[in-house]
Amino acid sequence: MPDDFERMWSDLAPIGRSAASGGYFRQPFTAPEEELRSWFVEQCSARGLRVETDGFGNVAAWWDAGAGDGVLTGSHLDSVLDGGAYDGPLGVVSALAAADLLRSRGFVPARPIGVSVFVEEEGSRFGLACLGSRLATGAVAWERARELTDRDGVALGDLVGDVVAGGTSALLDGVGTFVELHVEQGRDLVDRGAAVGVASGIWPHGRYRFEFAGAANHAGTTRMEDRVDPMLTYAFTALGANKQARLAGQRATFGRVEVTPNGTNAVPSLVRAWLDARCATEAGLDELVAAIAAQSSDRAARDGTTLTVTAESVSPAVAFDPALAAAVAADHEGGDWPVIPTQAGHDAGILSAAGIPTAMLFVRNPTGVSHSPAEHAEIADCLVGVSALADTLERLAR
Amino acid sequence: MPDDFERMWSDLAPIGRSAASGGYFRQPFTAPEEELRSWFVEQCSARGLRVETDGFGNVAAWWDAGAGDGVLTGSHLDSVLDGGAYDGPLGVVSALAAADLLRSRGFVPARPIGVSVFVEEEGSRFGLACLGSRLATGAVAWERARELTDRDGVALGDLVGDVVAGGTSALLDGVGTFVELHVEQGRDLVDRGAAVGVASGIWPHGRYRFEFAGAANHAGTTRMEDRVDPMLTYAFTALGANKQARLAGQRATFGRVEVTPNGTNAVPSLVRAWLDARCATEAGLDELVAAIAAQSSDRAARDGTTLTVTAESVSPAVAFDPALAAAVAADHEGGDWPVIPTQAGHDAGILSAAGIPTAMLFVRNPTGVSHSPAEHAEIADCLVGVSALADTLERLAR
Repeated sequence: MPDDFERMWSDLAPIGRSAASGGYFRQPFTAPEEELRSWFVEQCSARGLRVETDGFGNVAAWWDAGAGDGVLTGSHLDSVLDGGAYDGPLGVVSALAAADLLRSRGFVPARPIGVSVFVEEEGSRFGLACLGSRLATGAVAWERARELTDRDGVALGDLVGDVVAGGTSALLDGVGTFVELHVEQGRDLVDRGAAVGVASGIWPHGRYRFEFAGAANHAGTTRMEDRVDPMLTYAFTALGANKQARLAGQRATFGRVEVTPNGTNAVPSLVRAWLDARCATEAGLDELVAAIAAQSSDRAARDGTTLTVTAESVSPAVAFDPALAAAVAADHEGGDWPVIPTQAGHDAGILSAAGIPTAMLFVRNPTGVSHSPAEHAEIADCLVGVSALADTLERLAR
Repeated sequence: MPDDFERMWSDLAPIGRSAASGGYFRQPFTAPEEELRSWFVEQCSARGLRVETDGFGNVAAWWDAGAGDGVLTGSHLDSVLDGGAYDGPLGVVSALAAADLLRSRGFVPARPIGVSVFVEEEGSRFGLACLGSRLATGAVAWERARELTDRDGVALGDLVGDVVAGGTSALLDGVGTFVELHVEQGRDLVDRGAAVGVASGIWPHGRYRFEFAGAANHAGTTRMEDRVDPMLTYAFTALGANKQARLAGQRATFGRVEVTPNGTNAVPSLVRAWLDARCATEAGLDELVAAIAAQSSDRAARDGTTLTVTAESVSPAVAFDPALAAAVAADHEGGDWPVIPTQAGHDAGILSAAGIPTAMLFVRNPTGVSHSPAEHAEIADCLVGVSALADTLERLAR
């Protein structure tokens, strides 16, 4: 079984990897992501699993057994731009390896067990995180999603086409429970000395587009006091957002910026920047974003620029089924796994919000670094994760 | 003659214009810029001027007459990204119109008069402003210039090819004087109530690439205090540069920024930003850039990021020939034209530094706005400019 995990892991290693940075570029509906999905379908077919797809790019493959609602496990295969190897693929490879482990144990499920891949979890191409699971659960309507465009202006609807009858997905019909295994994206498990943890919930979080409009002008001849420079309003906002989040123990990040015209010798006419904000509570998130926008508007008034803030997506707090989390965490060798919150969005959060009892397992990340080529998990911890996931599936499908 | 100017002006109006912004995208060796150059060659041929080109994309067309060193006048046809209609083309169209005016006056030159276009004056594609005139004068060696790359990684050498024998240009051989007419890029002439002015000199200025390196990480799960976020160092630097330049009556602009990986939910690993700095004196420029870099380094030490500063181009102060400027400015209807400095670089500055006696004429710009779709000059002022340029050529070629 360890051999299977490592073999699958090395199958995936080269796909979409940048030789320059060592990071991954696995954006949805690009060649690397399609190669990953083909690989997944092949792996499922080789195991005799029945593959189902919906028109959106989501896939679920079933070990048909017993009767009643199924137990689904899986994650995603897409990455952020220049991301790490583990975020997503670890959950998919572990799901396949856990199914192998259950068979090697001679386990006979009393209900179906499925492995799944949801498309565009990171929102790196169309800007809406958990796009696949939102479409699969109906959390976002196809009528809205089909209009989403990538940075080159390509619409999702033009890529996916009209293959989706009625714009809905039947992929989750008959799913009674969902379990997602994921690399941890912080150092909580390192601090606790645990290889595996169980999620209690997900912080509410959102993406907000800040558009700072000014007036283009010559960078040499225009006196500093005559300028209407949106770069200044943006720079002040980025510093202020960081400070407010730091003091409150919350998160605020400006990681994406687009400048118009982006010429060295021109004062910009427009700066677009995206705020990623996350808080322990929904009220806290609203307050944080409002405070950042208010401070930014004050500065805009001083700079003569104008600020427009658009919420591109906001995800409410997720509390995973507490009884399920406790059951998943209980009674392992050496005691219970810790139950911990996360600040990162996941497909599991979307399925939980859709009323499907859901659990998440985390695998320890020695550095806590994530969304980076430096993201890592030790192979020994990954194998503990596979074993923990197999135990969980066995309990749920017994 | 006014008809000719307006007809030429409307010929150029649609070329490279963005319907979205109303601004111009006339980057060198792109279709719009090549169309402009073809138009220029046609105009010269229609006037019976002898067209010369060098291998770099520079063009000069001669009204062969008399003997001795020639008098050359002209400007450029490329624009900044999303630039205005006047910066460059006004000087070229005015040069052709001034030649027409001299002929209509029955003027017989005692020496050759030429009209010229230099390529990539704005540096919007290959990052080095006045590229064409630097190559024509030998201020930059072809061996260095051919390695310059645009944002897509295309090298200048691959575009221009090996047509340049020995990597030098003979375009300026036999040029005794150069005169460039240009739209003003500030409001000095508005304040003085003059349609035309004469340049005394150009402030020293430069472009400096600031690279802020940090560590990519997850925008949700990474605590603010655990981050190494280069966006913060950049934002602080942009605000500090603006303040220092403002207090000193100088110029410092960050108008171009590139973020890696530029994803909403990732702390960036790298922010590249370009400083455009200009001062009244070379010592002042050195001090300003050093002070900005020092303040930025201090902040980088606090953020845990690293800063690398690379001077991509630095242009020393230019003092145009004072006797020539006085002669050009003297004895017009209503008194002398004002003689004023500029903060903008021009091909005229490169030719002056190469030892060619050079003068510049500015045409009033009602708003002072430049490097922007809003850049403007009134047609009446443009015609005064044509007349002033013709007067200047007549004096020089008499």
